[in-house]
Amino acid sequence: VFTRNNFPGHPVTIGRKHIQSGRLQAIIVNSGNSNVATGQEGLALAYKYVNRAADHLQIAPELILPSSTGVIGRPLPENTMLQACDLIKQKIQEADFPGFARAIMTTDAWPKMKTIALKSGIRITGVAKGAGMIEPNMATMLAYIVTDAAIEPELCQKLLSFAVNRSFNRISVDSDTSTSDTVVLMASGKSNVPVQASAEDLTREAEKAPWEEAFLPDENARDFLRGLLEICQQLACEIAKDGEGATKLVELRITQSASQKQALKIARSIINSPLIKTAIHGADPNWGRIVMAVGKVFDEPLKLENIRVYFGSLELQGAGLQDIANYLKQSEICLTVSLGCGQVAERMWGCDLTAKYVAINSEYTT
Amino acid sequence: VFTRNNFPGHPVTIGRKHIQSGRLQAIIVNSGNSNVATGQEGLALAYKYVNRAADHLQIAPELILPSSTGVIGRPLPENTMLQACDLIKQKIQEADFPGFARAIMTTDAWPKMKTIALKSGIRITGVAKGAGMIEPNMATMLAYIVTDAAIEPELCQKLLSFAVNRSFNRISVDSDTSTSDTVVLMASGKSNVPVQASAEDLTREAEKAPWEEAFLPDENARDFLRGLLEICQQLACEIAKDGEGATKLVELRITQSASQKQALKIARSIINSPLIKTAIHGADPNWGRIVMAVGKVFDEPLKLENIRVYFGSLELQGAGLQDIANYLKQSEICLTVSLGCGQVAERMWGCDLTAKYVAINSEYTT
Repeated sequence: VFTRNNFPGHPVTIGRKHIQSGRLQAIIVNSGNSNVATGQEGLALAYKYVNRAADHLQIAPELILPSSTGVIGRPLPENTMLQACDLIKQKIQEADFPGFARAIMTTDAWPKMKTIALKSGIRITGVAKGAGMIEPNMATMLAYIVTDAAIEPELCQKLLSFAVNRSFNRISVDSDTSTSDTVVLMASGKSNVPVQASAEDLTREAEKAPWEEAFLPDENARDFLRGLLEICQQLACEIAKDGEGATKLVELRITQSASQKQALKIARSIINSPLIKTAIHGADPNWGRIVMAVGKVFDEPLKLENIRVYFGSLELQGAGLQDIANYLKQSEICLTVSLGCGQVAERMWGCDLTAKYVAINSEYTT
Repeated sequence: VFTRNNFPGHPVTIGRKHIQSGRLQAIIVNSGNSNVATGQEGLALAYKYVNRAADHLQIAPELILPSSTGVIGRPLPENTMLQACDLIKQKIQEADFPGFARAIMTTDAWPKMKTIALKSGIRITGVAKGAGMIEPNMATMLAYIVTDAAIEPELCQKLLSFAVNRSFNRISVDSDTSTSDTVVLMASGKSNVPVQASAEDLTREAEKAPWEEAFLPDENARDFLRGLLEICQQLACEIAKDGEGATKLVELRITQSASQKQALKIARSIINSPLIKTAIHGADPNWGRIVMAVGKVFDEPLKLENIRVYFGSLELQGAGLQDIANYLKQSEICLTVSLGCGQVAERMWGCDLTAKYVAINSEYTT
């Protein structure tokens, strides 16, 4: 699953081609330079270092996914990349996920990794990075998930898209869409435990509520999808929590919505509102801003009197403003907005907006 | 012209009814409390003070427009409002526009007013307020424009909508749409100079480029519309420049676009991008963020190689990054993005994002 930005990085362009076969064996990640808007030279260099690594690993170049994050529009240093590829066999002797999680960090405050073992014996490990501060760059995210489950490539893609849509596609740090976003799921089959689901099962699944859950009929597949969702959601939350300058993770639940489209539009309006993000930062129970953010979704008119707002378990009507202010002082906030016009629920994660975000992103790139 | 927010303030609801006749004689403005989401009591109180003022002024209540800005969801103090209305005749002896401009300021850094005299003898005076800092509130804007031109109510509405769409609807401080926004044009006819235009003239006008100009066939009408545009654009720029915490006014020009819709979508993506706003604040020539913001308008795919970016008169390709950084240190920045796919141009105004914006909006409401 790649960024939807219309100007994707060269690594994303190559990655889209390389995953066509449904098979990958290696991922090459660099940070500090996204290799975006670097012209034909940038594309040629990406192919060059992928080929170099393929030679050393003795695999086809098409089995390698390149990934880059960092400043846009600056040439990627050729020697650095090629020299790193020359050391690839010497440096990588065995799987070292914690080491990988640390290596792809740029300005993340902590490495982001999660492993779970399912009843069936399948293991799933996910590693991600979120944006940081040393060099101003995109709120770029990368996530790599591996499993020893036995899954056909086509199903792998479907399960990943399903999980990404319920996790990484539901976070926003600053509403800016990176040109480098990449999420990968690789399944080795080493556990010999098969994960199977039909296209119909997945279509039905997509319509089921609550969408944070999985209900596939096959037990192995259901457990696998639940595990995948858990990993994706946890890594996504870590990225939101580690958002540039952020001090608080915000979970936003939209309930009683008429449609998923409506719920998401309103969720995005709230989670991205600078006025709500700053109020949460200051533990300011300025709920009028939530009214404003719901109301500014012009094409989804609602009745104000049907809307209910909850800060954690405190309902706005009834709770004292001081109680809400105290609740907002916590580092993890749950905000629920019930629209009172249907049965659909949605969830998004975001963070507060702080002076540190401004400081990080005002710094000079060069 | 009122806010498009689906939860408008009670004054806006009343205002929409009162302007039906096309006639107004008085405007009552308060600040610090927007009278939004205050229930039936808030609506009843607004009618009550409008009626009280009408009694004192001996005019029909329908000739009065109420306007409020400030915190949402808090009861408007009844006594304060009624007592002010009781003093209305005593306090207002003659037209005092500078006094009015100061009186409607809440946390604006300076009063916003502009008067122009046209060749025909017509005068136009506009007064506006932009959002401020004492009490965290919406990026709420109000603007009142009066003229002694003789214009029929229907044409008045059309000319105002035309001008607002090319000025106040082209500014963004933080992408949040207030529940109170109001712009009013009142024409007394005292100059005895008629302003006339047919519906066809105005339709043709709307299609003409550049849209900052006016080309109506009748000279008086053309001059009037040019004057109105000038006042609206200047007041709109002042609001953007006085945006909460802002240190810089940003004029964004989109050129060579395939359509107005495309130009505006991309303009909004750029002018509201927190990463671009912070880079401008820090005079950081991080042009990659502009690429990102153009690319994240998913439904308007463009060719990256056709896009040209200018900082003032400096073209990105060719100019040194240090020259661009120096240019960005100015307090008024002009950024031009040429999309290379058509003939349409658009313009928007915004401001930088600063730590002060966060400080202002994190403060406690109560």
